[in-house]
Amino acid sequence: MNRFRSVAIIGVGLIGGSIGLALRSRNPAAKVIGAGSRAATLQAALESRAISEIAQDAKSAAAADLIVVCAPVAKIVDQVSTLAPHCRPGTLITDAGSTKLEIVRRLQAAAGAWDRSVRYIGSHPLAGNEKKGPRHASADLFVGRTVIITPTEDDAREDRARLADFWTGLGAKVVEMSADEHDRALAATSHFPHLASAAIAASTPERYVTLTAGGWQDLTRIAAGDPAMWRQILLSNRANVLAVLDDFIARLADWRAAIDASDAAKLEQLLAEAKRIRDAVGS
Amino acid sequence: MNRFRSVAIIGVGLIGGSIGLALRSRNPAAKVIGAGSRAATLQAALESRAISEIAQDAKSAAAADLIVVCAPVAKIVDQVSTLAPHCRPGTLITDAGSTKLEIVRRLQAAAGAWDRSVRYIGSHPLAGNEKKGPRHASADLFVGRTVIITPTEDDAREDRARLADFWTGLGAKVVEMSADEHDRALAATSHFPHLASAAIAASTPERYVTLTAGGWQDLTRIAAGDPAMWRQILLSNRANVLAVLDDFIARLADWRAAIDASDAAKLEQLLAEAKRIRDAVGS
Repeated sequence: MNRFRSVAIIGVGLIGGSIGLALRSRNPAAKVIGAGSRAATLQAALESRAISEIAQDAKSAAAADLIVVCAPVAKIVDQVSTLAPHCRPGTLITDAGSTKLEIVRRLQAAAGAWDRSVRYIGSHPLAGNEKKGPRHASADLFVGRTVIITPTEDDAREDRARLADFWTGLGAKVVEMSADEHDRALAATSHFPHLASAAIAASTPERYVTLTAGGWQDLTRIAAGDPAMWRQILLSNRANVLAVLDDFIARLADWRAAIDASDAAKLEQLLAEAKRIRDAVGS
Repeated sequence: MNRFRSVAIIGVGLIGGSIGLALRSRNPAAKVIGAGSRAATLQAALESRAISEIAQDAKSAAAADLIVVCAPVAKIVDQVSTLAPHCRPGTLITDAGSTKLEIVRRLQAAAGAWDRSVRYIGSHPLAGNEKKGPRHASADLFVGRTVIITPTEDDAREDRARLADFWTGLGAKVVEMSADEHDRALAATSHFPHLASAAIAASTPERYVTLTAGGWQDLTRIAAGDPAMWRQILLSNRANVLAVLDDFIARLADWRAAIDASDAAKLEQLLAEAKRIRDAVGS
């Protein structure tokens, strides 16, 4: 388990449960403490061996060397702020939230309330899907996936390296960038695309839904995601999402004009550009 | 092979090849004549047993009891018009094109050039994906899929039944509607969604493409489709696609307003409506 003797996971759903399974499948003796609001979920995580014990209170979770907060975006700041004053010096805290700038800024402002050597550095594993809950957790969820970590200039090289090693130990590739750059990038690659997928699903007339096929189903798969979770993500990254949305609406005007004018050459050029970018990613 | 002693398939790519495989896996003795512009593709279809023989000329394909034109949308009218004058009385001709109204209208106008008992009725199997070519063909491509057939008021009940039986014999569910209704429905369920998927892919900044994950990949999978094929589809159903696009742009304004106002309740309601429609379809 890298350089950490014990890891506490706050929230053992899809992401938190997968972290636990990944840690314990690689090191069966690993001490992985689970915490969360639902006793049944924690019990299930214990039985699936995603965690080795259930935290009896906040302090027992705070005693871990690494704390990973796998809570909905809107709750991460509160959870870190509650735990950090109870942590021992040198404890590293991270999260798995889909947005970063708001969280990092609010925690920088709050950090005076706890020991300076207790450090928070943001993480965002680019994994997970429209399914939620511990029963979809997998020890290999992070294998080959990218995890973005978002240290600030105040974070020591040693802490960045410890956090990066943690994720690479679960099979992930780690990319480091600022929280600001993260949020601009993810607005384009995840948050706006989610909005678009949902808007397409919502605009499909119900009388035609039985006439959808594989294309529509692929396109709208993520629209089945948890509305409360995505509402938080979209609002937490509001300015960037609006910028991407406005850019997209402007670009749709080009598509509209090409079709309206029956401009086959222009339309095929737009479609070919889309294919070029999509083909670069692979299936 | 239902009520047809012989079937000619014009174009043995993904759809045409799959029709042949489906026919011959259910009836190994079936006479399935393949025709098309590429000798190598026809030879591959013969070797994969998708067809039992290669048509030596247009007349030998026209001798079949059923002709299925699996050509790009923009070529279907020409191919039917070329074959129909050579067909025997009672021959049924169909196609597999993704749009119907333009094709049906143009063939109604052209039908004076051939025997009145030679009938064209449109088909659209809601199958296929971003992959093309005979090597992706499958005998089970149509199993459980919907095939829309678009007869006109002039078509005899007997001909409609023969065509419906053909597709149900390959495992499909057949739905009958007018070509006009087909094109309105498919603009919403397929043609506009394709445009949207491509526009999202094309608007993703290339420097961020390595930060995409499963959601973006699902959403943009169909954007890898053939630009020339989709350009034809979008322009063949131009008015309906524009209407759906305009409706979508209007709806995006609601999403934009909810995010701009940080209206959590409204945004979650929009996301929940999308999830409700998506969940009704299943994965």
